[in-house]
Amino acid sequence: MAKKTPADLLITECGELLTMGNARNGPRTGADLAQLDIVNNASIAVRDGRIVWLGQHPEDDIELCPGGVELSAAGAVVSPGLVDAHTHPVFAATREMEFEMRALGKSYSQIAAAGGGIIVSVASLRKAGHGELLALARPRLDRMLRHGTTTIEAKSGYGLNVEDEIKTLEVIRILNETHPLDLVPTVLAGHEFPPEYRDDRDGYVRLITEEILPAVARRNLAEFSDVFFEEGVFNREQTIVVQKKAKALGLGLKFHADEITDQGGAALAAQMNAISADHLECISDNGIRQLAAAGVLAVLLPGTAYYLDLPQRPPVRKMIQAGVPVALATDCNPGSCMTESMQMVLNLACVIYKMTPAEAFVAATTNAAYAINRGREIGILSVGRRADLVIWDAENYRQVPYHFGVNLARVVIKKGKVVS
Amino acid sequence: MAKKTPADLLITECGELLTMGNARNGPRTGADLAQLDIVNNASIAVRDGRIVWLGQHPEDDIELCPGGVELSAAGAVVSPGLVDAHTHPVFAATREMEFEMRALGKSYSQIAAAGGGIIVSVASLRKAGHGELLALARPRLDRMLRHGTTTIEAKSGYGLNVEDEIKTLEVIRILNETHPLDLVPTVLAGHEFPPEYRDDRDGYVRLITEEILPAVARRNLAEFSDVFFEEGVFNREQTIVVQKKAKALGLGLKFHADEITDQGGAALAAQMNAISADHLECISDNGIRQLAAAGVLAVLLPGTAYYLDLPQRPPVRKMIQAGVPVALATDCNPGSCMTESMQMVLNLACVIYKMTPAEAFVAATTNAAYAINRGREIGILSVGRRADLVIWDAENYRQVPYHFGVNLARVVIKKGKVVS
Repeated sequence: MAKKTPADLLITECGELLTMGNARNGPRTGADLAQLDIVNNASIAVRDGRIVWLGQHPEDDIELCPGGVELSAAGAVVSPGLVDAHTHPVFAATREMEFEMRALGKSYSQIAAAGGGIIVSVASLRKAGHGELLALARPRLDRMLRHGTTTIEAKSGYGLNVEDEIKTLEVIRILNETHPLDLVPTVLAGHEFPPEYRDDRDGYVRLITEEILPAVARRNLAEFSDVFFEEGVFNREQTIVVQKKAKALGLGLKFHADEITDQGGAALAAQMNAISADHLECISDNGIRQLAAAGVLAVLLPGTAYYLDLPQRPPVRKMIQAGVPVALATDCNPGSCMTESMQMVLNLACVIYKMTPAEAFVAATTNAAYAINRGREIGILSVGRRADLVIWDAENYRQVPYHFGVNLARVVIKKGKVVS
Repeated sequence: MAKKTPADLLITECGELLTMGNARNGPRTGADLAQLDIVNNASIAVRDGRIVWLGQHPEDDIELCPGGVELSAAGAVVSPGLVDAHTHPVFAATREMEFEMRALGKSYSQIAAAGGGIIVSVASLRKAGHGELLALARPRLDRMLRHGTTTIEAKSGYGLNVEDEIKTLEVIRILNETHPLDLVPTVLAGHEFPPEYRDDRDGYVRLITEEILPAVARRNLAEFSDVFFEEGVFNREQTIVVQKKAKALGLGLKFHADEITDQGGAALAAQMNAISADHLECISDNGIRQLAAAGVLAVLLPGTAYYLDLPQRPPVRKMIQAGVPVALATDCNPGSCMTESMQMVLNLACVIYKMTPAEAFVAATTNAAYAINRGREIGILSVGRRADLVIWDAENYRQVPYHFGVNLARVVIKKGKVVS
């Protein structure tokens, strides 16, 4: 009799185990975006936080270690933990007054004139200490985890000076070390121009390249650098200067691209070998071609398009058909999308971006993992990968995006431990 | 020293107690729709399921009965329990395949041709017994309660014959008797034409008036009668025949009105003295005037407009300005809006219907209660009313609609008991 594989966690009776185990490596594109590689009536075994076995008939292959846990999924759907590839979770003030002003029909510029916008978040974050920011961020991460998200990207961008960008990224580091969720840090010093540089924009660009980015890199506080490339925010030249410096310091590149107007942001992201271009509500056909050719992930944020009730929706079907690898994220932030729930984003992706439930699942797991350079660790269920798993209150995977506004994550498992 | 009022529940430290206690009786209209009548730093005392006192300094006025509970809201918002004035919570099959077909761009008629639509729900409900329907509905009601809804209207309409309409309404009665949530039953035999009457529509109208409605009334199984008055469903004459009979049997009237096309449904509802006209995505100016003049509640269902991604949005601001009393509901059903969460509806009302957070709260409590003839029992916090309450994870009321996709109901109280 063959020796059995020892496991400290065994989940049995998975009605649908979404392995996403498509043989092709790298982010999924085209028809592959809808390939969930479902195993029915499956079990999955975990040891030391990693998947050691999956298949049917675990009694033939698996023996539970002493103290190990066996958990029945009772016929439910089991998927990889959701990956949220674009968030701004460290902030102080909430901004519900702007939410009301938008309902009253106020424009972005009217809200800014009334003292609203990113600058509200900058003022309140600068006043807050590490402890306050940690205390405010933790319940947000708890909510993410409770809704099935097991890894997030987390941006700075409300500090906009050396001290407060560093403070934000230190908070992200502490959260990563102390919270079950994994956080992948991005420095977004180029989120907006701070008030003290309103009349010296190039001076702020110099502050970023000469002080903020080097200080961040020296402390090893970020994996990626992001810039809000948009009319009235960072122009093309300023964006290029910041991202060239970031690249020279060894950071990967992300872009807030073509959100409100088509600035050629997607094409620039492709030319600079970014890992992702995010938002893309106004992406051009040329931008689509360039992302596809360069294999740059398009991180779509339907929650923001919904929350701001944007008139324009990105050409998502065209992007998928052109071979752009599409990922999803919440954009969780206090101004333009106050939600922690990737489940909500799965629903929004189907309802307003017309992705199928299968495409949305791949975009929120496998591809989202690639969008933060974790594609070989998470986002797929196969032997050797991290055991980040969700048991869903659903009989089939389509029910997860279909059933919205409530939490369908029954059990959330992070690195082999039940965390929610 | 004055005698103190005895209480079996005392909630202290309500940062904002939304009393909705506007001195005017009846549903709120115009500027009154935004009047929350907030008491800050308030307490609220309950005995035998009813509010016995509210105000500041409870130590001067209230004494807790032996075994009574004191609960601190710790500065949070406390509001009346949400009231969901339009739901279809008793169904068997889920319909996630139609959700996917819509994402793929299939039209209503293509989905129907592929075997989808209400008729799927009819076929599966007819096969299910009372026990199965109860077991399926209970978790839905649990989710409603958990998200802060304490009373719902519940429609039949997937039976479409005597036996199965009665069965559905019996299930609703049993749920009302056994679940903490209060359910107000509506017979919706006029939801669609059943397959066996496809070629004899007037025959089905006769079945409704001669058999279904009398059987329902005899058993006292419904308070309201509703009809789906729409092109291709019940025409004006059929709708009038059904509702006249319902009225003669002592039922209140509701209408699915002007949802997909303007049929003059709002005006008909006003002429027939309905309690509410629901949906109204395509309401005309005349319809608005008539609802306002007759004081008929407009029950808006932004979840459905969102879920079906309808091109047209109702003229909500015009309705409010014209003096139409506006209420909100989920429309919870397996085809066109699979959510139990009125919190989600608060957010949708602000984002896509441009209601303010205050208007949305009144529409989801006070006015929703009037839309189901419970305006003197619930939906307002004042002495003598039912103690249906929610303590929210929010510092101010705007944060509840602002923060979406997650559950902010921290404690839900039904008739003075903590139920979630």
